Amino acid sequence: MSNKEVEVVFQPEGKRAKVPGGTNLLECADEAGVDIKSDCGGKQVCGKCKVIIEEGADSLSSPTSKEREELGEDLDEGYRLACAAEVGGNVLATVPDESRRGKQVILTEGLEVDFEIDPPLKKYRVEPETPSLADDTPDFERMRNFLNSEYGTQVEDIEHSTLKKLPRVLRDNMGRYEETFTASVLDNNLIRLEKGQKEDYYGVAVDIGTTTVVAYLTDMRTGEVISISSTMNPQVKYGEDVMRRVTMSFQEENGMEKLNKVIVEGLNDLLGEVCEDAGITRDDIMEVTVVGNTGMHNLFVGIHAEFVSKSPYVQAVGRSLDLTPKESKIDIYEGGNVHVLPTIAGWMGADTVGCLITTTPYEQKETQLMIDVGTNGELVLGNEDRLIGASTAAGPALEGAHVKHGMRAAPGAIQYVRIDPSTYEPKLDIIENEPARGLCGSGIIDIVAEMVRTGILQQNGRFNKDLETDRVRKSKAGKGNEYVAVWAEDSGIDKDIVISLEDVREVQLAKGAIRAGSNILMDEFGVETVDEIALAGAFGNYIDPTSALIIGLFPEIDRDKVNMVGNAAGIGSRLALIDEEKRKEAEWLVDEVKYYRLAAHEGFDMSFAKAQWFPHTKKDELYPNYDEILALREEESEL
Amino acid sequence: MSNKEVEVVFQPEGKRAKVPGGTNLLECADEAGVDIKSDCGGKQVCGKCKVIIEEGADSLSSPTSKEREELGEDLDEGYRLACAAEVGGNVLATVPDESRRGKQVILTEGLEVDFEIDPPLKKYRVEPETPSLADDTPDFERMRNFLNSEYGTQVEDIEHSTLKKLPRVLRDNMGRYEETFTASVLDNNLIRLEKGQKEDYYGVAVDIGTTTVVAYLTDMRTGEVISISSTMNPQVKYGEDVMRRVTMSFQEENGMEKLNKVIVEGLNDLLGEVCEDAGITRDDIMEVTVVGNTGMHNLFVGIHAEFVSKSPYVQAVGRSLDLTPKESKIDIYEGGNVHVLPTIAGWMGADTVGCLITTTPYEQKETQLMIDVGTNGELVLGNEDRLIGASTAAGPALEGAHVKHGMRAAPGAIQYVRIDPSTYEPKLDIIENEPARGLCGSGIIDIVAEMVRTGILQQNGRFNKDLETDRVRKSKAGKGNEYVAVWAEDSGIDKDIVISLEDVREVQLAKGAIRAGSNILMDEFGVETVDEIALAGAFGNYIDPTSALIIGLFPEIDRDKVNMVGNAAGIGSRLALIDEEKRKEAEWLVDEVKYYRLAAHEGFDMSFAKAQWFPHTKKDELYPNYDEILALREEESEL
Ligand code: FES
Ligand code: FES
Repeated sequence: MSNKEVEVVFQPEGKRAKVPGGTNLLECADEAGVDIKSDCGGKQVCGKCKVIIEEGADSLSSPTSKEREELGEDLDEGYRLACAAEVGGNVLATVPDESRRGKQVILTEGLEVDFEIDPPLKKYRVEPETPSLADDTPDFERMRNFLNSEYGTQVEDIEHSTLKKLPRVLRDNMGRYEETFTASVLDNNLIRLEKGQKEDYYGVAVDIGTTTVVAYLTDMRTGEVISISSTMNPQVKYGEDVMRRVTMSFQEENGMEKLNKVIVEGLNDLLGEVCEDAGITRDDIMEVTVVGNTGMHNLFVGIHAEFVSKSPYVQAVGRSLDLTPKESKIDIYEGGNVHVLPTIAGWMGADTVGCLITTTPYEQKETQLMIDVGTNGELVLGNEDRLIGASTAAGPALEGAHVKHGMRAAPGAIQYVRIDPSTYEPKLDIIENEPARGLCGSGIIDIVAEMVRTGILQQNGRFNKDLETDRVRKSKAGKGNEYVAVWAEDSGIDKDIVISLEDVREVQLAKGAIRAGSNILMDEFGVETVDEIALAGAFGNYIDPTSALIIGLFPEIDRDKVNMVGNAAGIGSRLALIDEEKRKEAEWLVDEVKYYRLAAHEGFDMSFAKAQWFPHTKKDELYPNYDEILALREEESEL
Repeated sequence: MSNKEVEVVFQPEGKRAKVPGGTNLLECADEAGVDIKSDCGGKQVCGKCKVIIEEGADSLSSPTSKEREELGEDLDEGYRLACAAEVGGNVLATVPDESRRGKQVILTEGLEVDFEIDPPLKKYRVEPETPSLADDTPDFERMRNFLNSEYGTQVEDIEHSTLKKLPRVLRDNMGRYEETFTASVLDNNLIRLEKGQKEDYYGVAVDIGTTTVVAYLTDMRTGEVISISSTMNPQVKYGEDVMRRVTMSFQEENGMEKLNKVIVEGLNDLLGEVCEDAGITRDDIMEVTVVGNTGMHNLFVGIHAEFVSKSPYVQAVGRSLDLTPKESKIDIYEGGNVHVLPTIAGWMGADTVGCLITTTPYEQKETQLMIDVGTNGELVLGNEDRLIGASTAAGPALEGAHVKHGMRAAPGAIQYVRIDPSTYEPKLDIIENEPARGLCGSGIIDIVAEMVRTGILQQNGRFNKDLETDRVRKSKAGKGNEYVAVWAEDSGIDKDIVISLEDVREVQLAKGAIRAGSNILMDEFGVETVDEIALAGAFGNYIDPTSALIIGLFPEIDRDKVNMVGNAAGIGSRLALIDEEKRKEAEWLVDEVKYYRLAAHEGFDMSFAKAQWFPHTKKDELYPNYDEILALREEESEL
């Protein structure tokens, strides 16, 4: 075999490598950037690296005996083991799906998520015969037949704008087919046909939060996020909280139109930003996936939302939606798709589904409690056997709302607090080291935990009035006492920044709701402890698990069994964009998660009352190692 | 059993009857206007009249012994024979599809077409439980489940505008579900939900001819056409013939946009007319079906049409299309559907498919030759075993184009001609008895046939110059001779109306093409004669079969084996609108009809030349009974 350079092309991507003769196809694939499974490391024994030789079979090295054994009859069908076959001339090979390596990508600090790069939307290189009088199969049917015979891909429909241009796109000026095209197929639908080889294509995963909207521009070939942009949800101007907006949507004239218009415009602006950043055009974006709570979902899709906001909180649709760019008014490639993830029940929305396909409790033996703290607190408890869930009206306080000096995680927000147990003086960490303007979610949990640990707060949430410090004082504005975190002269707002009894009360209500919800789910599930906790939500990455344990936000658990999964809903949107299996899981979850209505649960009120204490009225029973947790914190604080 | 009046409701339509106790369900159904099969005439022996009792089973008479025998286990499933069960109280019964009577409707003079009223688009009465905290299934899934459990109907998707309004449409002012709704389902898609019981719904079958566009407003419950409107194809202003328009579509700037716009506007005008006539609104129209030749198809859909007009005449798509009202710009109910029938090959278009699902050669043992004379002449030959087809560039002359005094079938057109063989004086029938302005298609065939019969024309098409009449003379304008059909003083155009040698030549070319095409198809099929001829096309209903035989337009055949099927393409559009099976047949035909390219056929030129004679150069061989045909005409003429 000569050493001359040869070219190897891998289908369906059409990726190419130029290599010296004698290189094996597995190395060629690596060179071309095509991922082929090779579990045995190229030793010709695992049989995973099968490829189909389309052209140039004769120029390959003869099949080895191991190869014959591994492939059997497949050998006659044109299969070779990539790790065995060495090239001696140009080769065109197809890499079947089964031989492709799934990728494992670490998406967030707290979590490794397994997924395959297997987007529902796929591109294929097509090289059909030009029609003739003897073979006058219509253009669409010709593409369909090629995709079916070459890739086993079923195509049934063709998107309307694609059809209209099809005859022209296919042909050169002489009326004959060009040689190579790229077909984009989504759900058996030919949604695009481009001249030549257009390997790259893009999608955008979107997370519509009540407060923040994030867009992740994704390279669909690699799953890589190549640009992120976020913005405040422009609906905020109509109301900070989701219920106000939903109410406006049906009470105010053209309320829905206004709310829908601003979020659509906001999204289109974000898409424009990520495109500009990445140097692509809107027309390059083929698909968008969307998660959001039920309110955001309805206002984005334009669904009449009156009745999902009133008992019995029934949503219009559970299953996922596929909208055209026209229907959704999202400005991407006109034949593209906007996929909205499904919702589980009333207010357990597409955001929770996004979290679950990220934390995947259904794939493990260990029991996971997933807590998504956002506008509400959503809880899902379960493992591979079953999943149960509940919503709590818990979120806002923990995100800084309803707390007098609460604020978003922005410059000037206190995000970390430690209190000296002898002097009651606080040590603070403020975002961007600006003069403090308030406390963000993690700061609130920190400060309350530290007030509990240092005895400023009693177990029942009352202030201890007998402390030797002017930081604890009678509240100037409201009732009861308050703790001064920052004196006016050091603050950025020329006022003392305080945590009042009322603020503590808000935290108690919020954490009590989540804790009581967890308890009821654990009762229903028949467990007394959980094996792991996944903490999701915009502030999930910042919250200190020890502080959360001190206030009793969740059941007692080893600190390293608490995973901060960050914006898991957004990650779920990304996963759904690039992994078809994840969409199926999402759809499956709708029926799979049994949803409990806490309000309807007999024991809820009592459980709720008990869970408002720090960490709980049944502290000794539920937090047997509470003192160790406090000790751990003390050690940390001393560092 | 008392004789008190009771109410019986039949599902899924929700049709009602108030009847005295003791009435059997078959009579109730008749009263309610529900068609139930009763092959044995209600004698409890055919078992065809099965219904499912949903409510009120106890109030029915006990099952008879014949009934037990007929129904067996079905009895336990709630089935009864409608002809046996007598009502004693209110009853709710479902009539399964199998028990519904198919309708046979005579659509045209020449043809009985069997079809079922089984539109792909169906309406269902739905009466779902109102949601509660205990049962919070989403609105869409609730409808889906109801349709599935009550009717076995699979619903997977919901049309976007229907989804947006869904929660509001379902509920009263108290937020509870209303009692009854009507769901419209098309292809597993819930496309409409209306409050209350809305039995009636409408569709429009459209036939886009090169010259004329026809719209048939149809009651989808009965298949009945309740209003017809037609108009000249507004594209005519851009060119009478289809090729000119197709060429304009890609050669002229915005050519496609202009042509598409006028036909869409024209169609929307027609829809407006039929709606007004029937006293309904556009919003009541749920579906539109469209047939037309490949040119009309492409210009309507907006498909780039350059390459279907050039060799190898490959169309963009064969399969049928389902377009949204937005995509097609057709102004009907926004969630409705525009179904465009499939095309078989290049220029054997949706119009031919429409003809074939009307004449259904594939359902019979007898060999049928279907001739659709329009802009082209389309030929399909076959029976239940196989079908072969071909196109001939034949139509225009037979429709009056390219003939000097040819005109459309309009007032003043000569549509019937008999010539006295001794005096050569013609007897004419003129549309609306106005002074003659020209000859329409049937008049042209008549006059040529009579000129042949009376010896004015020789078998080869030349004039016989030795006749004692001033009606045959040297042509004033063109070459050769001509026959004067109407003297100037009697005409409505102050000119002699003549048939010249050139006109005869045009007829020879057209009929020669069709005749040669038939011959080649018959050769390919392996038959020397055909069992029947179906003559379709705008003028199919008017042409005189004896005249057609005299000139040799088609093979020799018994006169009563020639069926005039009129505008079979338009009938096909109507059938596809109301019978799902017909759509499947249409789709199946695309692959089933083997298409021959006559131009590519070796023997075509010779065959074409021979077929131009009257009736054929091989007259004795192909028309052994020609003299009898002439004799038959003589008898007719004497009447
Ligand atoms: S990599 Fe194991 S057989 Fe090829
Ligand atoms: S009509 Fe024949 S069994 Fe009822």
